[in-house]
Amino acid sequence: MAAEAVVTMDGWCALHDTRIFDWTSWKMASEKQRTEAVEEFKELMTKWEAVEDENNGSQSIYKVLGNKADLMFIFFRPTMDELEEIKREINKSKIGDYLIPGYSYVSIVEMTMHNPMDEGKDRELSPYVKDRLKPIVPKWEHACFYPMARRRWKDANWFEIDKEERTKLLYEHGMTGRKYAGKVKEIITGSIGLDEYEWGVTLFAHDALQFKKIVYEMRFDEVTAKYAEFGDFLVGNYLPKEDVSTYFAL
Amino acid sequence: MAAEAVVTMDGWCALHDTRIFDWTSWKMASEKQRTEAVEEFKELMTKWEAVEDENNGSQSIYKVLGNKADLMFIFFRPTMDELEEIKREINKSKIGDYLIPGYSYVSIVEMTMHNPMDEGKDRELSPYVKDRLKPIVPKWEHACFYPMARRRWKDANWFEIDKEERTKLLYEHGMTGRKYAGKVKEIITGSIGLDEYEWGVTLFAHDALQFKKIVYEMRFDEVTAKYAEFGDFLVGNYLPKEDVSTYFAL
Amino acid sequence: MAAEAVVTMDGWCALHDTRIFDWTSWKMASEKQRTEAVEEFKELMTKWEAVEDENNGSQSIYKVLGNKADLMFIFFRPTMDELEEIKREINKSKIGDYLIPGYSYVSIVEMTMHNPMDEGKDRELSPYVKDRLKPIVPKWEHACFYPMARRRWKDANWFEIDKEERTKLLYEHGMTGRKYAGKVKEIITGSIGLDEYEWGVTLFAHDALQFKKIVYEMRFDEVTAKYAEFGDFLVGNYLPKEDVSTYFAL
Amino acid sequence: MAAEAVVTMDGWCALHDTRIFDWTSWKMASEKQRTEAVEEFKELMTKWEAVEDENNGSQSIYKVLGNKADLMFIFFRPTMDELEEIKREINKSKIGDYLIPGYSYVSIVEMTMHNPMDEGKDRELSPYVKDRLKPIVPKWEHACFYPMARRRWKDANWFEIDKEERTKLLYEHGMTGRKYAGKVKEIITGSIGLDEYEWGVTLFAHDALQFKKIVYEMRFDEVTAKYAEFGDFLVGNYLPKEDVSTYFAL
Amino acid sequence: MAAEAVVTMDGWCALHDTRIFDWTSWKMASEKQRTEAVEEFKELMTKWEAVEDENNGSQSIYKVLGNKADLMFIFFRPTMDELEEIKREINKSKIGDYLIPGYSYVSIVEMTMHNPMDEGKDRELSPYVKDRLKPIVPKWEHACFYPMARRRWKDANWFEIDKEERTKLLYEHGMTGRKYAGKVKEIITGSIGLDEYEWGVTLFAHDALQFKKIVYEMRFDEVTAKYAEFGDFLVGNYLPKEDVSTYFAL
Repeated sequence: MAAEAVVTMDGWCALHDTRIFDWTSWKMASEKQRTEAVEEFKELMTKWEAVEDENNGSQSIYKVLGNKADLMFIFFRPTMDELEEIKREINKSKIGDYLIPGYSYVSIVEMTMHNPMDEGKDRELSPYVKDRLKPIVPKWEHACFYPMARRRWKDANWFEIDKEERTKLLYEHGMTGRKYAGKVKEIITGSIGLDEYEWGVTLFAHDALQFKKIVYEMRFDEVTAKYAEFGDFLVGNYLPKEDVSTYFAL
Repeated sequence: MAAEAVVTMDGWCALHDTRIFDWTSWKMASEKQRTEAVEEFKELMTKWEAVEDENNGSQSIYKVLGNKADLMFIFFRPTMDELEEIKREINKSKIGDYLIPGYSYVSIVEMTMHNPMDEGKDRELSPYVKDRLKPIVPKWEHACFYPMARRRWKDANWFEIDKEERTKLLYEHGMTGRKYAGKVKEIITGSIGLDEYEWGVTLFAHDALQFKKIVYEMRFDEVTAKYAEFGDFLVGNYLPKEDVSTYFAL
Repeated sequence: MAAEAVVTMDGWCALHDTRIFDWTSWKMASEKQRTEAVEEFKELMTKWEAVEDENNGSQSIYKVLGNKADLMFIFFRPTMDELEEIKREINKSKIGDYLIPGYSYVSIVEMTMHNPMDEGKDRELSPYVKDRLKPIVPKWEHACFYPMARRRWKDANWFEIDKEERTKLLYEHGMTGRKYAGKVKEIITGSIGLDEYEWGVTLFAHDALQFKKIVYEMRFDEVTAKYAEFGDFLVGNYLPKEDVSTYFAL
Repeated sequence: MAAEAVVTMDGWCALHDTRIFDWTSWKMASEKQRTEAVEEFKELMTKWEAVEDENNGSQSIYKVLGNKADLMFIFFRPTMDELEEIKREINKSKIGDYLIPGYSYVSIVEMTMHNPMDEGKDRELSPYVKDRLKPIVPKWEHACFYPMARRRWKDANWFEIDKEERTKLLYEHGMTGRKYAGKVKEIITGSIGLDEYEWGVTLFAHDALQFKKIVYEMRFDEVTAKYAEFGDFLVGNYLPKEDVSTYFAL
Repeated sequence: MAAEAVVTMDGWCALHDTRIFDWTSWKMASEKQRTEAVEEFKELMTKWEAVEDENNGSQSIYKVLGNKADLMFIFFRPTMDELEEIKREINKSKIGDYLIPGYSYVSIVEMTMHNPMDEGKDRELSPYVKDRLKPIVPKWEHACFYPMARRRWKDANWFEIDKEERTKLLYEHGMTGRKYAGKVKEIITGSIGLDEYEWGVTLFAHDALQFKKIVYEMRFDEVTAKYAEFGDFLVGNYLPKEDVSTYFAL
């Protein structure tokens, strides 16, 4: 007998797009070429900001720690068409010649009835739900992204246990999360049918240590200890438009 | 004692071929070179369309989300020879210089007696079966591709359980699929002996969210929860010939 | 107590060598350079054919499906020295500049007493055995290659079960294989101590669908369902010398 | 019921950054370019040393054994911002053109109550704790880095066993470590929420054999035998500033 | 209760260093450049041979089968410093521009009391032990290298079973090895704390078939069937200095 499937509410489409910056080629470009590329890139950012101002999407750029990537873009848009066009627009732009595509993640903002914070609300209509399904990326100092999945093991199969058990485990998990209110914000996106793993977790914090604190503490939650599988973790520092010229300056 | 092997009916050969587009080199080409390359590519597409018009094969091209690929070609042809020639034709074409080969998948369209929708039909001869074995790719807005296999675990070995059990589990699975009639179309191809994993699943939808909905709900089906292993997922937006010039325009 | 080790008879050394063809560089070469490279390559093939004519080795070349490779060479030679020299000869040749090395496999043709078709024969001396240990590659339309290993799991450890059990399971397996007589030819090579996995399976067929049929049906054999682990599968179309110029023609 | 989460004290942020040196391009540079690049690099090192002199961070560079990397930088800084800036500064520097980014690791220095050596101390305030949370890299002859995680297996789930059991196992582990006092120094950093695996272990020794000795002996500790999963190991020889010119000299 | 740790005697440091040869660039070099590069390389070999003549180290070079590598260098030296310097010396040499670094392995020659052939000897002082800890590479026709580890599974945990059981299993294993005396020589190096896996096995033979024979037969030994995990296998043909010019000749 199959377990009862979870019901989700789904919001904006999401693209996490990391890039390696080709500094060697960048240095070989002329100063004029570099200035033009940066200016054009800032115009792109201005255009994206206008979309966010109209509540038609949201985004942020991060300076990634370590050598997995140099920059991570996070985009939310109503459709997959817009996300593909944004990727292509970056690639066609002047600075795109130096932004070598790296790891990326395609998903859709997701809320489930499992989430205890959502219970007892007039979900479909409430501004709270709308805000969560169409999230404006908080412009906090740091972001962390990782994909995860639930185990389908013989004696630990998330997709076979009762819905009540799943709800209970996620409720406890949510309680751990609440301790970090004000310190860590979270956007959950679902990638089943769209990308590797099953969910993408994007965290935001003023202090990067809080990423370690919350993920560490949650690892002791039963739902994580028993059922979670994690992909790789990416951490970055927020790059506002006013720092873009400095970032690329030689 | 070995379990009874499934009997399959097999149709056209299939090639899923993804490409990274080399925008940096593309920008270094002259406008004349770019125009010629795009025109030649559209002629190729016209040639392929003629094959589809004659019911001798089918294909579509997709603009892939994220950095795994930029374009995904899906080709169905009666023989492996034609599929290899198509790959070579793309590589020899002018635009082939910018289409860096990426992930690909080789398989053959497959129908099994397990599929409950097929029961009680005069299978071999019916136009229904012929249409499914020689599928014309629906020109819907979005496509999703992923490979999958069945587990051969000690207590969850798909190839050791009774044929009746397999049929029952797949029947339930098919019931979940039916809920998405009109929203999601599916082509199943088999890759045992031909490529990684065991089957390729190609889905088509007008709304990409439906990929997430159907694969998510199916994950709770017993046959998936217990026996399925998934490869990576690729999602793309349909690229009709009339949009090709715009796609490549700088 | 250790299980009784299997006794093998061993024949020619084998090299499966796949190459990606660098079409972009190929197009940048002059027509004269291309012609010379193809002519020299056909001379190499002629030299190899002479070796086969003398029964001192055998080989074939395949046009590979999908993007894993463009060409696959299969060579059988009496010694590892010859196989290394062949690789180097290809790399030193003119066309070698465009044949980027890809996946390869090193093994030795192997016959075991497990094989029921071999029982009751005067093995060492029979021409049948000699032919199988020094196989001439059938010039059939399609070839399929995949590596495999036997599980060493706690309750499914091939190297711990009785020799009788192993022989029985392989006998049943052989029975499935016999159904494909005339449709599929098989060469088994052993790679324990030489390469990844434990055996390489090379299949030949007039119709590529038969690769799917036989590997699929065999997956239900107990020996496969319980004990087999598979690497990746490669499928190619036979490339005779008379088609080489066409293959490379722009 | 979830196990009690461990409480950590956290110190400086850490970056392990490996690079492949592009000797071929280096040889194509002029002697003047090489001299300038090395001088500028030594100035960077001098600047970093000043930070260490002020106790605002610490670092060392290692010549890596084998082909995984040529150089490994280890940096400790109070913030992730500084670590990202250092990476960018290296990439923007002249010698950065030849330092191809390789494997890296992002983490934060961590002490836990599990560590028996820490018990009964006035932890937060003691100079001992401060020194461990803000570690000055010992300039010993050799360094070894590897990431590790704790198993979450059905019958060996580190995050589900009692805190007392975890403390006992880590106490025994610490006893093995004490045998190597004076021979091996260790810095533990936590990467949960920041990078792959869960912890990074950085060892320092006068004699590289001691890395093998201590990790080998510890493998028999119950906590390792049962619960540890290891990533790859990197070993390097200390590169002091006075040897930098020789290192790069042709 | 932890199992008793094994006691090891440790000898020379070892570097297995594989390289892909860049034949395309090699052909673009002038004949003068190629001659100079080969001559300089032979001088390097001469210098290394002098070290071996003084019993201060040992080495050999192999022509690798298949596309994983073209050449494999095996070096034994008293210190890690010398091994890093050798790598750098190769990279700085003229021919180093064409020797693209590939897979490598860092380890230390190891003898354990487990080895039955070592029992009852005055180990520390005997010339036998000295020869094994500071091995001169036999200049036999073929070499084989592979890394391996022991399982730490729930019911098959090498690091938890009794020392007596480990000794018994390794004794039986040694008996299998003895059958190949005169056919196969073996050097065991330990890589715990230094590289992936736990041990490196380097075999030497006059006939490459013997690699397959010994590793195959040993797979049925209980210690292997139950506890062994293998990395990839590399096989090469010995390249003496007098054949170097021919190897690189176009």
